Amino acid sequence: MVLKDAFAYGGDYNPEQWAPEVWREDVELMNRAGVNLVSVGIFSWARIEPRDGEFDFAWLDEVLDLLHAGGVRVDLATATASPPPWLAVAHPEMLPVTAEGVTLSSGSRQAYCPSSPVYRRYASRLVQAIVERYADHPALALWHVNNEYGCHVSHCYCDVSAAAFRRWLEAKYGTIEALNDAWGTAFWSQHYAGFDEILPPRAAPTFTNPTQVLDFDRFSSDELLDCFRMEKAIIRSRSSLPVTTNFMGFFKAADYWAWAEEVDVVSDDSYPDPADPRSPVYAAMQRDLMRSLGGGAPWLLMEQAPSAVNWRERNAAKLPGQMRAWSYQSIARGADGILFFQWRQAVAGAEKFHSGMLPHSGTDTRVFREVEELGGELKALAGTPDLLGAPVEAQVAIVFDWDSWWAVEQPASPTRTSYVEEVFSWYAALAAAGATVDFVRATDDLRRYRAVIVPTLFVASDGQLEALDRYASEGGTLVVGFLTGVLDHDLHARAGGYLGALRRALGVWIEEFAPPAAPDLRAFGGGEPPALSVRGEVIGGTGAAAQWAEYVRVETAEVQAVFEGGALDGHPALTRHQHGDGVAWYVATRLEAAPLANLLHAVLDGAGVDRLPAIPGVELVRRGRVLVAINHSPEAVVLDLAGTELLTGSPAAGLSLGSMGVVLIVE
Amino acid sequence: MVLKDAFAYGGDYNPEQWAPEVWREDVELMNRAGVNLVSVGIFSWARIEPRDGEFDFAWLDEVLDLLHAGGVRVDLATATASPPPWLAVAHPEMLPVTAEGVTLSSGSRQAYCPSSPVYRRYASRLVQAIVERYADHPALALWHVNNEYGCHVSHCYCDVSAAAFRRWLEAKYGTIEALNDAWGTAFWSQHYAGFDEILPPRAAPTFTNPTQVLDFDRFSSDELLDCFRMEKAIIRSRSSLPVTTNFMGFFKAADYWAWAEEVDVVSDDSYPDPADPRSPVYAAMQRDLMRSLGGGAPWLLMEQAPSAVNWRERNAAKLPGQMRAWSYQSIARGADGILFFQWRQAVAGAEKFHSGMLPHSGTDTRVFREVEELGGELKALAGTPDLLGAPVEAQVAIVFDWDSWWAVEQPASPTRTSYVEEVFSWYAALAAAGATVDFVRATDDLRRYRAVIVPTLFVASDGQLEALDRYASEGGTLVVGFLTGVLDHDLHARAGGYLGALRRALGVWIEEFAPPAAPDLRAFGGGEPPALSVRGEVIGGTGAAAQWAEYVRVETAEVQAVFEGGALDGHPALTRHQHGDGVAWYVATRLEAAPLANLLHAVLDGAGVDRLPAIPGVELVRRGRVLVAINHSPEAVVLDLAGTELLTGSPAAGLSLGSMGVVLIVE
Amino acid sequence: MVLKDAFAYGGDYNPEQWAPEVWREDVELMNRAGVNLVSVGIFSWARIEPRDGEFDFAWLDEVLDLLHAGGVRVDLATATASPPPWLAVAHPEMLPVTAEGVTLSSGSRQAYCPSSPVYRRYASRLVQAIVERYADHPALALWHVNNEYGCHVSHCYCDVSAAAFRRWLEAKYGTIEALNDAWGTAFWSQHYAGFDEILPPRAAPTFTNPTQVLDFDRFSSDELLDCFRMEKAIIRSRSSLPVTTNFMGFFKAADYWAWAEEVDVVSDDSYPDPADPRSPVYAAMQRDLMRSLGGGAPWLLMEQAPSAVNWRERNAAKLPGQMRAWSYQSIARGADGILFFQWRQAVAGAEKFHSGMLPHSGTDTRVFREVEELGGELKALAGTPDLLGAPVEAQVAIVFDWDSWWAVEQPASPTRTSYVEEVFSWYAALAAAGATVDFVRATDDLRRYRAVIVPTLFVASDGQLEALDRYASEGGTLVVGFLTGVLDHDLHARAGGYLGALRRALGVWIEEFAPPAAPDLRAFGGGEPPALSVRGEVIGGTGAAAQWAEYVRVETAEVQAVFEGGALDGHPALTRHQHGDGVAWYVATRLEAAPLANLLHAVLDGAGVDRLPAIPGVELVRRGRVLVAINHSPEAVVLDLAGTELLTGSPAAGLSLGSMGVVLIVE
Repeated sequence: MVLKDAFAYGGDYNPEQWAPEVWREDVELMNRAGVNLVSVGIFSWARIEPRDGEFDFAWLDEVLDLLHAGGVRVDLATATASPPPWLAVAHPEMLPVTAEGVTLSSGSRQAYCPSSPVYRRYASRLVQAIVERYADHPALALWHVNNEYGCHVSHCYCDVSAAAFRRWLEAKYGTIEALNDAWGTAFWSQHYAGFDEILPPRAAPTFTNPTQVLDFDRFSSDELLDCFRMEKAIIRSRSSLPVTTNFMGFFKAADYWAWAEEVDVVSDDSYPDPADPRSPVYAAMQRDLMRSLGGGAPWLLMEQAPSAVNWRERNAAKLPGQMRAWSYQSIARGADGILFFQWRQAVAGAEKFHSGMLPHSGTDTRVFREVEELGGELKALAGTPDLLGAPVEAQVAIVFDWDSWWAVEQPASPTRTSYVEEVFSWYAALAAAGATVDFVRATDDLRRYRAVIVPTLFVASDGQLEALDRYASEGGTLVVGFLTGVLDHDLHARAGGYLGALRRALGVWIEEFAPPAAPDLRAFGGGEPPALSVRGEVIGGTGAAAQWAEYVRVETAEVQAVFEGGALDGHPALTRHQHGDGVAWYVATRLEAAPLANLLHAVLDGAGVDRLPAIPGVELVRRGRVLVAINHSPEAVVLDLAGTELLTGSPAAGLSLGSMGVVLIVE
Repeated sequence: MVLKDAFAYGGDYNPEQWAPEVWREDVELMNRAGVNLVSVGIFSWARIEPRDGEFDFAWLDEVLDLLHAGGVRVDLATATASPPPWLAVAHPEMLPVTAEGVTLSSGSRQAYCPSSPVYRRYASRLVQAIVERYADHPALALWHVNNEYGCHVSHCYCDVSAAAFRRWLEAKYGTIEALNDAWGTAFWSQHYAGFDEILPPRAAPTFTNPTQVLDFDRFSSDELLDCFRMEKAIIRSRSSLPVTTNFMGFFKAADYWAWAEEVDVVSDDSYPDPADPRSPVYAAMQRDLMRSLGGGAPWLLMEQAPSAVNWRERNAAKLPGQMRAWSYQSIARGADGILFFQWRQAVAGAEKFHSGMLPHSGTDTRVFREVEELGGELKALAGTPDLLGAPVEAQVAIVFDWDSWWAVEQPASPTRTSYVEEVFSWYAALAAAGATVDFVRATDDLRRYRAVIVPTLFVASDGQLEALDRYASEGGTLVVGFLTGVLDHDLHARAGGYLGALRRALGVWIEEFAPPAAPDLRAFGGGEPPALSVRGEVIGGTGAAAQWAEYVRVETAEVQAVFEGGALDGHPALTRHQHGDGVAWYVATRLEAAPLANLLHAVLDGAGVDRLPAIPGVELVRRGRVLVAINHSPEAVVLDLAGTELLTGSPAAGLSLGSMGVVLIVE
Repeated sequence: MVLKDAFAYGGDYNPEQWAPEVWREDVELMNRAGVNLVSVGIFSWARIEPRDGEFDFAWLDEVLDLLHAGGVRVDLATATASPPPWLAVAHPEMLPVTAEGVTLSSGSRQAYCPSSPVYRRYASRLVQAIVERYADHPALALWHVNNEYGCHVSHCYCDVSAAAFRRWLEAKYGTIEALNDAWGTAFWSQHYAGFDEILPPRAAPTFTNPTQVLDFDRFSSDELLDCFRMEKAIIRSRSSLPVTTNFMGFFKAADYWAWAEEVDVVSDDSYPDPADPRSPVYAAMQRDLMRSLGGGAPWLLMEQAPSAVNWRERNAAKLPGQMRAWSYQSIARGADGILFFQWRQAVAGAEKFHSGMLPHSGTDTRVFREVEELGGELKALAGTPDLLGAPVEAQVAIVFDWDSWWAVEQPASPTRTSYVEEVFSWYAALAAAGATVDFVRATDDLRRYRAVIVPTLFVASDGQLEALDRYASEGGTLVVGFLTGVLDHDLHARAGGYLGALRRALGVWIEEFAPPAAPDLRAFGGGEPPALSVRGEVIGGTGAAAQWAEYVRVETAEVQAVFEGGALDGHPALTRHQHGDGVAWYVATRLEAAPLANLLHAVLDGAGVDRLPAIPGVELVRRGRVLVAINHSPEAVVLDLAGTELLTGSPAAGLSLGSMGVVLIVE
């Protein structure tokens, strides 16, 4: 835990935007709101080092001392997230460049090439100076490295990056012929005579080599992570406090499995759209990913909005109670801290319309009142030993894989897919079925889960496929979605029916992909494309198969549902296979919600998964001994749960839970 | 007036596209069509100066002499609108560059950087030569500087522009710290150590500093205006004839309030889509802006299309009579001249499909006949003293503000808005209510108006807000739309409830913005977003509030309507406040047409605004002693107006006005 | 014929992607599948010349010998379609550049500037080496120059291309003033003082000079064709075997009329979407173009997909039988060979999800079985003398013109049109009416056709218009669609009513264009735009005129249909004119399918055109003595045709033809 015996509560604090007299008011109001942790210095580089090598720490000394005096702990940033203009002027070669060759200027934020030795040298010097000065400051509780790595510039295509990419490739492949084999450069006359001929996947006449693109995705995630490692090493040389950097949920450009191994505490920035009815389930999925990344350890919600954000086309305000409800969602799913962007709403700059804990309109506001109330509640809750630091247990796991994400969304794939949409369709159905979920890698120890879901593991090594096979054969229940095991780690197709080792586990192989016509095709011809559906008892009848279909060849599996319509009529769509001591299902289409719910009931019942009651519109999850219920719907719901409510001390039975209401029940 | 005792009538004339024998036919046909003014030389730079420093005026001498002999006056262009290819070849550094760094080539038109000293030097020399030669030519009636400034290149991001921007900023701010404060560079580590570090808002990783962007908009308008000033000074040194440059209606890139102060006559180019049913009202709004820019003085419709344009995806022809109807709309709203692009339809180049007064197909055509007829009518009308030069009186004003336009359409704003759409919704409702409208600045003398409407004055200085406050307190009727007074001139949020001085006038403050879900959000989730509406007696019941909503906190105002639905249910949506001797309304959403009409009836009646009768489909406006009625609808309408029709001399009572018909009634 | 007494059957073969042991299996399976021709080496440059000047032919020797031993003939590629990375590294100036100035990198394919002397020099050396080595190899049957010229890079805007463009212009125009006249540079101050001032139509502030753009389209097609000519000359110096390059159907960037004169055999790549119901008719149109390009000579279907492609957003598989049905469509329309991309499905690279004759999943698959079956059938059919090499007779021709295509789709045209859509609407109606169609140039000998259709011949020289006039006056039936003869070859408008010489033939002239409002206009205003329709007996009543309308002035023609609605109400929409010994129709709008069918019945009956029976969903076409019937519909159809079915020997009468079924009937 970052703070001893307390939920962390607070937000980003940017005192450089305000006059010193405001700092005093800030600390008073922080105390009033129950704030005990603030993130300081995230965008302070230009303030700390206004000119090359001239450091000004006086203001920051004063801020940290004031916070310390007020009892507010500090998550101190390394301030490297946004280089000052003078650095770009002196070294324009450190600016990032797009695939089309456009150099991105200073004037917004994050204008640096992650591979730039200039950037890294200056960033190191800055971190060194900050660590030297503040490592022993008593306010410090946590180090905050950089900020939202890769948010705006995750891939740089400049010549410096090209050179770094070549070094990365040489380290990975050893010889150029190994690279040529992996990339399949025999195709389209792409053979490289040496590493010095290789470029990033810059704008090209048509599809760039897919393995080159994937390796560049891997390289780009690694380069950013190297920046993190560099800063962390400097901090560690002087300080033993925990180090984090803030993740961004399902963020495509960074393989957080690798990143999570490097941070001491997982922390996350989360901005679901308050106006989107899908947000509560999507956000729950994000919380579960964060807990899973940390191996189940408590994590921090490092940023959320008190109300509206500023970057959507329409920036909806949170409903009354919605911020509190979503905060408890994080706590219920393993967070030990709730922080916001940002403490005091800015009056200038690009984020001035992003809500703050302390709004433009002051303290006599819905937003500040809700901030205060939550602060008070969290302080009270910290006293009960049942929640803070407690684990969340899951019996079901979903395999999540960045390589597959990167690859399946490349052009020149069998269909245009959203990997996260695909995962979400499984997650939402599991959540509706009352199953709590962890995210895992295929090679993790899966034996602690009663069921494992594998949505579209498009890219998989032999090791991954064998691990999944072993999981099933040793008694697990494995559910495999379409487009799994199609490619190996070099993006070579697994000839002979795809699936690799899973072919044995599933008792099927895939003859050919045959997706239904895309819905926009009707624009070109006469009338609607023919409908494709899927039918079977286990899915409760018939459902549409609008996204995907394929020719499945059954070897030893039992067919549980078939396609209906067109050329695929009567062909298998869903199979079940007894494999060793376990069971392996294969799902050859994307099922709609109702048929998927039916399938999951059969799967989870078969696997003996314990489930929480399903109450429409209400999220239920258990952390430690506490069952948390959150009503995301617009209507009140009467709960029929046993135990005592933690915040009020009332008995839980018969409690009416209003819209956005939260109860914490100890049984 | 540009022409003594006559409506100007004619168009752009590009003789360099035709052989000299055609020029003679042109003058004959101009006479036949009643043409008395043509704009010559707009794109003649390459013809006048075919090589660096070699001037050829012989052809132009002949053209001007021919026109003079034929009694056609000349609006002589300075020919600087499109530099010849040789200049770009010799000085590629004078070409414009986009924010992404793309240099725009010669081969179309307007390929110059407005800040380029090279361009300015060559343009000056050209203007000097033209003025020297023709200042005393008897055909001349008007000087036409450049053409449609900024139409294609309003913002240039090249290094030359960057240097000019720095000089402009230094002149504005004096010190770099003043700029840092204004731009809020403490945010996102953007602090500048000196002016030399500043760049135009080129492509960047994410949102560029909003004040930097706004200052660049201001700078870009100023740079173009400097070009105009430079040319005007050269003309003025030799000629006392009036000088104009053609505006383009609601053109975002040029703050025409500043521009109008520099021209001797306001002139405008106007190209509404003949197929768009909204065009007549939109065009009326544009005419009223032009009259207002000139402080009520007569203006020139410098360009309109005789029939179709060439640059839409579908270029609809004007309906029979539509060109005449729209021409009279301009006259009714203060124009003393009707000119077209262009006299003779081009047979080559990018505008050959733009209609001409003399079409490809010759004189035996609907278009030429209508041109002739209108020419004859205008000649006849000039004899009556009631119209030419007469003023248009308005009792209602709308505040129009380029800073607000620029700022509210920036990204990272509370919502995606079209400023002109917002203004149009007010204008159209006022027009439907029979109110004639002027456009004003908030700091103009507002006392001559009985009501002033302030739509979304997003950016406002203290002075502007105080002026509006004063207007109301001294007896005016003020109507303020949402998102007004949110930011000051540096784009700093007005903390403490927004509105600044208007808070006192309106008796409300704004706690928080809470726009309803965007209509496209349904794509992501299940079902429609919840509907939000507004209800109140003064708006005649209930209407949708689909665009905007906010939490309004009432201090001393009376609530006239409330929101219905969701979190805002019951919160104020429309307030009225007695303020000093006047009244101030606040409208916290965009009202649909019917509720807005109801509101305006109450407002205008309360303010004692005289109104013209409302006849569906018919535009009514009074200029001087003449009431003009124009039937834009497809159906004939019987009018019930007293007086005599000017063109026919018939009594007005009981006149049937066919589709596209026009009557001019002297009471 | 490429192969003596046999239909060519096979596909692209890329042995460099596979180990030598696979080559042996390949030849065995080719034999099993009836393959007798494969295209080798298309992307082999980097394999043949892995380093500058180092050639490695050993592998290719072995492959060709193996194929020869297996009885498989070779279409040997010149391997110049995709330069290896080392060439771009050594000579980055040979890379292509977009209009915005973006250099396109290696890493995909076709990364070369067609005008680059570097590329041409290296390509020549490569071709020389290949020809030297293999000209006498007994496996060779055909030379395959480059691949899909211009597919990804048809226009290059680099400085090298600029210089080549200047040379091309100088050769065309002789003097700069001739160019200035042709381009109409008097407009917009574009006059050029010398050829050295001219650039390609790079990114510019607004519309680039239209004739400049058209000349650049012509130049770009010519430059690619020059590359072809260069390679062909090298081949011809050593080999008398036929030479081809693969066309891409209706490919805008290459004027295939000019290209077809240079190839010995026309060959085509064709990838219609299997899920698009319009594909069978569109593909038929493409086959007829290929036959017509070759003057009626047999052609090769050089590439089609065995099943799915990989580059659509959704890549639908072909239905069972669909590949066979579409293959017979090509044969019925004049092809003497059916080849695929590609023999063995790739496991790596950007096209690994493009289906192969031998799929990832092997030989126990629908796809391989269908490939085998078709191979067997074609071998059997080659024995009958009635089909192979036989001609297809058409009595109707459609004029197709690349200049018109390029020009009518330029911006700043009267309306946004798709030229191929316009042609397709005529083709589809003719196909539905049972008429077999050739494509022609206006200046071809048209006397062999009973009717000639001229859809939107927007650009036409005097010679073209006079040829069409002569065709009608000498007894032909001419049908002219709207927007014909509007511009001459320099894109100068034909003043005086357009149409040029056709005005006499048609007995009408065009006063003005007046297209109806675009359907998306309703977005801006209130309600739907008014509907426009067309009415007349010959079109069977009334139909919509949603795309186009104009004011037609009748001189000597008879009005056959009029517009209904709006300003055009009652104006002529369709006219017929007895002209000399023939008849000329003018169609002033795009007719919908039903009215167009009615019109065509009248036209074809009047012209005495023989027609095949019309069976819904069934394509009928006669090649030589064989009537081919293909059922593209999902339902079986009973045919009532006399004769004997070739494949089965059964009598044709009463045959039931299932979905995707094909019968070949000899009467």
